[in-house]
Order: sequence, then structure tokens, then C-alpha cells
Amino acid sequence: MLSVCIVGLGQIGGSFAAALTRRRLARVVGVTRRASTARRARRLGLLAAAGTDLKAVGDADVVVLATPVRTLLRQIPEIAPLLRPDALLTDVGSTKLDIARAFRAARPLGPLLCGHPMAGNERAGLDGVDADLFRNRPWTLIPCRGARRDFADFERLVRGVGARPVWMDDAAGHDYKVARVSHVPYLLAYALMGTEAEATAVAGNSFRDATRVALSDPDMVLDFLLTNRRPIGRAAGRLIARLRALVGRVERGDVDGLRAVLEAARARRARL
Amino acid sequence: MLSVCIVGLGQIGGSFAAALTRRRLARVVGVTRRASTARRARRLGLLAAAGTDLKAVGDADVVVLATPVRTLLRQIPEIAPLLRPDALLTDVGSTKLDIARAFRAARPLGPLLCGHPMAGNERAGLDGVDADLFRNRPWTLIPCRGARRDFADFERLVRGVGARPVWMDDAAGHDYKVARVSHVPYLLAYALMGTEAEATAVAGNSFRDATRVALSDPDMVLDFLLTNRRPIGRAAGRLIARLRALVGRVERGDVDGLRAVLEAARARRARL
Repeated sequence: MLSVCIVGLGQIGGSFAAALTRRRLARVVGVTRRASTARRARRLGLLAAAGTDLKAVGDADVVVLATPVRTLLRQIPEIAPLLRPDALLTDVGSTKLDIARAFRAARPLGPLLCGHPMAGNERAGLDGVDADLFRNRPWTLIPCRGARRDFADFERLVRGVGARPVWMDDAAGHDYKVARVSHVPYLLAYALMGTEAEATAVAGNSFRDATRVALSDPDMVLDFLLTNRRPIGRAAGRLIARLRALVGRVERGDVDGLRAVLEAARARRARL
Repeated sequence: MLSVCIVGLGQIGGSFAAALTRRRLARVVGVTRRASTARRARRLGLLAAAGTDLKAVGDADVVVLATPVRTLLRQIPEIAPLLRPDALLTDVGSTKLDIARAFRAARPLGPLLCGHPMAGNERAGLDGVDADLFRNRPWTLIPCRGARRDFADFERLVRGVGARPVWMDDAAGHDYKVARVSHVPYLLAYALMGTEAEATAVAGNSFRDATRVALSDPDMVLDFLLTNRRPIGRAAGRLIARLRALVGRVERGDVDGLRAVLEAARARRARL
């Protein structure tokens, strides 16, 4: 059985541990900063063993870094020398360019794979653990060093927890994609939450749906916002341009133009 | 038992009929443009009787106009002379200034009450009927003519179907509020649906939540966008300014400023 060491047992790390353990896909060991988190994860039965010593990564076939991106960037040089020469190193951070650079700079001996499961809920840490969190969700995989066959075992784990692997070859391209489909939607939710209370008193489902992500853990959100600044700026600029064009159509009463946009959007959303 | 005539059996009119009938709050009669819709509503047991003749409004204690706003504006002068002198006339349209003006111009003899339940789903017409659609949702009520006691029976029906009456005295103020909490969120969803397919391939829940309303019936959406142009333009301008300020904080790496915004937004959203 594959041995997987997960560093960081927050919502994503803990859920991956739970998903692997419940489906008996791997023997999972966890490493956390706090001993209390390790104990709680063990009590919950999410994994076979958990502790606070990073040296545990030296026994694993696969090491998954699941701390916040800014923590992870500091941990990579510390962890790389501890790995077995054939161990796969991967991560689950939501931005990839800085991590891909740190992976390459740290020069571990085994294969390197950047990863990003597009999954999550509003609950922070172990409170957010859900063994089904990854079902039917995309999990981006970007090889940093190694051949495709080096990643076959890990791809099986990704499929095993119900996710859909999406292979990419470009960390910068990934970051711009998530800026558009995730980070900018978060900023829109925060901008909407600045709406005056007299108006939110009549808010219905459209407002609730559009602002749901504002319930997320601020530390998690700060982590991806601050490690993806330029792609977010570019994506927000394009979104604002599209919004302005739409508002212009409304103000001009351009019925046919609006109907075409609304119908195309509905058809695309239905296929999402 | 109060007799209620609902003109227009779409998602809102049909759901109000179903909610009143199921809870035995009123005897409901429906008027639709198409005989087939009237027959289907009767078969579904949503109401006591349904037909296509507007004269049915003449027998009702309460007449609820539930056609699209642009249709409703044409119907008001036709319906007003048919009403009983003591009948309450109200509506469920999502924009109120034009309707309030049309109500006053038509000069029916009884009390006039503009209404707007903030409820809805993505399914059009009778397919969207849900007797629980109004539960825990705000239902704005704006008196156009008459004293508060003239509206007591109708307020009881609104509470009876589970909605929360929100009294306002200003149709223009209402329209700017819904532009901010509903119409602009719709436009944001359409702007997001313009995101390139290469990016939407990795879309997760944040994108799905932010674009859910793009599944709505385009005719319904066009109806409120085109009858609320100036408030939408103003609300969108303010939203864009707030979004730009947030993006600026991201680009500058303003951790403290962002954290304050994220925490305030999270607390407000949790109370929504």
C-alpha cells in the first residue's frame, strides 16, 4: 500500500487524508504544527498516524504539502532534503507560479508535481473536513520535474477520491485561470458585501449566492489573494470591462443585444 | 374566506396561488393569457378556478398582478375599471416606480399597494411553482393609495405564506435597493459567464455560486433590467468603484486593509 505523508491538516489536507483513508487507497501519515491538531485528526480516524515532526516525510512514497501557500513557500527548502530519492513531492496550494519556482529551487531528487484541487467549503481547518470534498471537482496537475509515468500513482489517488485530473503545463497559465474563475469571484462577493444595510434588508437568493464565499476563512482567502496579485489585477480589469459593456446595453435598452448575451450565458452555465 | 384573483400564473403568481391554496388562506382564481396554462394550473390543484378572461378580477377582494412588468404596465389601464370599488389592487413585479405611476394614473377606486416578493428560482413558468417559495423571504410592500388598515388582510396573506413583510414608502428607493442586491448581481453573473472556456474548465464552487442566476429565464431577467435602467447604472458604478478599491489593495499587498474588509464582510454575511 502506498504511503502518503500530508503536511498540514486543514480543510484540504484533512479532507484528502479522510478520503484516502476511508477508501483504503493509501496509508496516510499527517504532520501538523500543533500537537492538538494531530491528536484530533487521529481521534477522528482521518489517518494512521500524525505528529508534529517534519522528518516523517522521509518515510513516504508521496509527500503532499497542504499548508497555506505562504507557509508552504517557507517549508519547501526545509522539507526537500528530508525526502527519499524516489519520493513524489506535490502540493495542494491554490496558486502555482511561486510554488513551482520554490520546488525547482529546492532540488529534491524525486519527481515534482504541482497540484490544485478546486474544492472547498466555508469551514476552516478540521471543521471543514469532508471525505467527499473532491468528488466531481477538477484537480489541476502541473508536472515540474519527471515523466508522466512518475505521476501515475498519484493520479490514481486523485481519481480514487473522486476528483477529475486536469493536466496543465504552465503554472502562470494556471494562476491566471484561477484568478478568473475563483479569485475575482471572491473579490466580487466582498465588493457586494459593501452594499448598504438598507438595501441588503431586501436581499434574496441572488445576493446570497453571489456572496456565499464571503463566509470563507479570511486567512485562507488572504493566502491566495496575496500570492496571485498580478493575475488578479488583469482578470479583474477584464471582468470590469465586460460588466461595463453589459451595463451600457441596459442603459441604452439594447433588448436584442442583451437577449443574445443572456441566452448564451444560460446555455454555457447549464453545461458547467 | 378572502377571494384572491391572480393575473399571470408564472413562477411567482403560480407559487403564490399554490401557497395560499395549500394553507387554505384564500379562495384563489387565476387568469392567464393561454387556456393551456389555466388548465394545467387547475390540474395541479394550485387554485379553485382559472381562465383567460380578465373580467374575473371583478369578483375578487384582492387582485394580484403577476405578469412580467412590461406586460403589467399595459394591463393596468385595462384592469382598473373592472375592479370592485373596495378591491385591493397589488402586484409582484420586481421594479416599482413605473408600476406605482401606472397604478395612480389608472385611478381604480380601491386601495393600491405595490408589492415585491424577493423570491425565485431558475425554472420558468409553472415549472418553477413552489408553495414554499416565499418562506423566510422579504416581501416589500409600498402603499400607493389607502391607509395601513386597508392592507391588513393582504399583509396577513403575505405572512401566511411565510414571507416577511418589509414596508417602504418610496418606489424609487425600492428600485435602487433591488438594483444593488439583485439586478447588479445578475449582471455580475453574466459578466463572469463571459470568462474563457480554458478557465471555466477548472471552475469550482465559487464560480458556480456566483453564476447560478445566469440559469434564469432570459425573459424574466430582461423584464427587470429594462424597467430599472438608471438605478442599475448607478448601482453598477458604485460596485465597480468598490471592486477597484479592493483590487488595488490586492495589488499593493495591503494585508491589514484586506483583512479588515474580509472580516467585516464575513461577519455581515453570517448575519444575512
